[in-house]
Amino acid sequence: MVAASKRRHRRGRDRRDAAVAAAPPYLRRRIPAYELLGEEALASLEDHADWLLAEIGVEIRDDPAALALFREAGASVDGELLRFDRGHARELCRTAPSNYRMHARNPARSLEFGGDNLVFGAAYGSPFVTDLERGRRYGTLEDFQNFIKLTYLSPWLHHQSGTICEPVDIAVNKRHLDMVYAHLRYSDKPFMGSVTAPERARDSIDMMALVFGEGFMRDNLVIQGNINVNSPLVYDNTMTAALRCYAAANQGNVISPFIMAGAMSPVTQPALIAQAHAELLVGIALTQLVRPGAPVVYGSFLTTMDLKSGAPTFGTPESTLANQAIAQLGRRLGLPVRCGGHLTASKVADAQAMQESTNAMLAGLMAGANFIFQAAGWLESGLSIGYEKFVIDAEQCGALARMLRGLDIDPEQLGVDAYREAGAGGNFLGAEHTMRHYRDVNFSADLCDASPYEHWCEGGGMDMQQRAHARWRRMLREYEAPPLDPAVDEALLEFMTRRKASMADAWY
Amino acid sequence: MVAASKRRHRRGRDRRDAAVAAAPPYLRRRIPAYELLGEEALASLEDHADWLLAEIGVEIRDDPAALALFREAGASVDGELLRFDRGHARELCRTAPSNYRMHARNPARSLEFGGDNLVFGAAYGSPFVTDLERGRRYGTLEDFQNFIKLTYLSPWLHHQSGTICEPVDIAVNKRHLDMVYAHLRYSDKPFMGSVTAPERARDSIDMMALVFGEGFMRDNLVIQGNINVNSPLVYDNTMTAALRCYAAANQGNVISPFIMAGAMSPVTQPALIAQAHAELLVGIALTQLVRPGAPVVYGSFLTTMDLKSGAPTFGTPESTLANQAIAQLGRRLGLPVRCGGHLTASKVADAQAMQESTNAMLAGLMAGANFIFQAAGWLESGLSIGYEKFVIDAEQCGALARMLRGLDIDPEQLGVDAYREAGAGGNFLGAEHTMRHYRDVNFSADLCDASPYEHWCEGGGMDMQQRAHARWRRMLREYEAPPLDPAVDEALLEFMTRRKASMADAWY
Repeated sequence: MVAASKRRHRRGRDRRDAAVAAAPPYLRRRIPAYELLGEEALASLEDHADWLLAEIGVEIRDDPAALALFREAGASVDGELLRFDRGHARELCRTAPSNYRMHARNPARSLEFGGDNLVFGAAYGSPFVTDLERGRRYGTLEDFQNFIKLTYLSPWLHHQSGTICEPVDIAVNKRHLDMVYAHLRYSDKPFMGSVTAPERARDSIDMMALVFGEGFMRDNLVIQGNINVNSPLVYDNTMTAALRCYAAANQGNVISPFIMAGAMSPVTQPALIAQAHAELLVGIALTQLVRPGAPVVYGSFLTTMDLKSGAPTFGTPESTLANQAIAQLGRRLGLPVRCGGHLTASKVADAQAMQESTNAMLAGLMAGANFIFQAAGWLESGLSIGYEKFVIDAEQCGALARMLRGLDIDPEQLGVDAYREAGAGGNFLGAEHTMRHYRDVNFSADLCDASPYEHWCEGGGMDMQQRAHARWRRMLREYEAPPLDPAVDEALLEFMTRRKASMADAWY
Repeated sequence: MVAASKRRHRRGRDRRDAAVAAAPPYLRRRIPAYELLGEEALASLEDHADWLLAEIGVEIRDDPAALALFREAGASVDGELLRFDRGHARELCRTAPSNYRMHARNPARSLEFGGDNLVFGAAYGSPFVTDLERGRRYGTLEDFQNFIKLTYLSPWLHHQSGTICEPVDIAVNKRHLDMVYAHLRYSDKPFMGSVTAPERARDSIDMMALVFGEGFMRDNLVIQGNINVNSPLVYDNTMTAALRCYAAANQGNVISPFIMAGAMSPVTQPALIAQAHAELLVGIALTQLVRPGAPVVYGSFLTTMDLKSGAPTFGTPESTLANQAIAQLGRRLGLPVRCGGHLTASKVADAQAMQESTNAMLAGLMAGANFIFQAAGWLESGLSIGYEKFVIDAEQCGALARMLRGLDIDPEQLGVDAYREAGAGGNFLGAEHTMRHYRDVNFSADLCDASPYEHWCEGGGMDMQQRAHARWRRMLREYEAPPLDPAVDEALLEFMTRRKASMADAWY
């Protein structure tokens, strides 16, 4: 019995491992990006961004080193306020690379950013986690590890994001060590390091050096920082110091203004878009002033708010338009673009969650994004990550990967022989052509139930959330870690122990 | 107390009536359609359709009158199998109008088909209805009337579809009379008549004549038939006879091949698309042979199936690609295009329902469809219509209407004065610019909950389906019928009584 059970277990794992192994490490878009705006409108937005940079300016707070770099580069610096002649900020971005590779510790999982490539990543940053059984609670290191494991097991997630949830049971000044370790120990895909303080960014980079070697990292990207802007038009020194740290090490930065129109920008979307572009030019320029050629992503996180309550809203038509437009501006700059994601304000994985998430995801995807993180798990405006939501979103990433392959209009796909066999009024189910294609032709979304009503009732009449609950529990039960060189593991653990011993716990 | 309650009631109704009255009768697209395929691929699909029509042929079963029309027009007729020289079927479609008006009994609700116009319509054809309280059961005339009332009250639904659900408590040979009457009595937007037998199509047209007058109808569209194809490549006489009936009266036909790839077409999407195009050319040609210039819609309903179980599937990536491509072919033909809809295989309005529905809807919408019915209520692969799903979908149609308005990149929208007022690091909530815009700038989706978690819990922790349940019940409670000329009403009732008395109940 035990042997049989083990065999079953082994077969289940082999099947899943095969799926993970067979999935491409990142996607290649073969369908056109949607072009919402024409040349004149795009030029107006760029012109308005230039006006903002010349007339209103951008503040960099408490970071004299960053201000000095801009001063040397010829920007006008008035206290902490930067202003740029028209076109100058854009000129400072010109050394940023348009395409580059990000190395995973498993070389088969390395990524390409830019061009026609697309990378899906997990959710990032929520203090709470939720699942159908235990409900909503603060995230812990165990939850963090669980979501890394689920990301590892999801063939259509290519990137582990970074702070996939906050492990609030670990001191704030130490948790980045456990997070980077968990990323490396429980999976083998690329991810982002800490940005909450420059020394934590430094620790993240140092831990990566134990895996990849310092020499390799001088010329190769292995870790990124996720840099938010304190919109409107402000960078604070936490973010600029972390940015400088990653750029100085020739590592990556994903610059992402998170703007809710009406609070952090004017309430009208065109203003929001131009402002985000202006903020991005400054952040990207800073990476290039620190180290010309440092890899950077033109990111954004643009959305709306309920103007009655002040609550952020997602998947709204206004935010769809903003995402479509900002992606065009990023492409014109020739940089990898980040936008979109499975975003929602819903507290649970219900109809609202997937209506909003699907809208928000398709906005970025169709706009031609190269990097979509927050692609799995996001709930409650980012305040929580849901286990059920995670596996639902992750499966949908697979469906979207199929969509990006587009159509091949060739004789085999046009099925000439199938028509000769079946004719008018025939049935194609048994046709030779169908037999040749049925295994691979359609993406199979197993969490979607298409069975007849009676079968569905017999199976318990479960909604998608309930089916998703069973899936993530099974995944975690059957999870096995990818191999990690024991010497590397030991070095990482030793580094963590030493760094933790060097400071008292701090909770800020 | 009673007076106060009445006043509240009256205020509630006035607010909603105002929303219905303020909504445009149909939409005007101001954003570009997505162009999936380039010229070469589109020409290959058209070429393959020509090959199908020349080599494989299309059958018209049991309708000698239709075959005679094609024979006279120069098609090759072999028994019931039609074949066309390359380009001939397309040539026969050339008299079909590219734009036309459809008149509602309330002139303010009349529609424009074609061009940049978009019309959303309710679901069509399900035998079952479902709601959160009573569960799934066969539809009745009361359900039918309820859904007409809900459509009337939904500002973003422009068209009542036709058989919004099957009223199975009425005899099959008589229910079309009750349906057309309910469409006219409980709402005032355009709709489709019966197609299940030519005499029922005739009754539908005759009832419209009691409202609009025969003379008016000779030159003006007031009713349509929804014509399905018995794919692959077969029209049966029920459909062609109904089609001929509507076309002969200069009324409309919406031709919609419903094809699941793998059963009714080869399993590969390019074949499906070319086949649908071939089938459409024959149906559209027939309308023009009956009456040149008769209004027609280039429709389609293209989807996938689970190839393991044979169950239809919706909102899949393969069907998205097919919808995007078929819309391009329809535009090239210069005809109003129908595709897309809020479609799902899910039995309830859960995460699956809205993930699939949003995907399917956006496929048609972004592809540039002019007419999207099945836009509200669809569940269970069309076998049931859900009350909660209906109001969720209908609200989303409003969000999509906002999206179709696009962005205006002008100085007011760019918010120059807002930046002068708030500056870098400011808050825009109180800005004069925000005050000018906040009322109208964002679509308000009231069924989406964006409130903080604690508020949401205090409100009962309801998911979207539960909120939707409260909404449709309130809508029906507060519904009041639009005015109908008592003489017209009497004539309609008299017609129904007379027709019902003329035949015994039949249940087929």
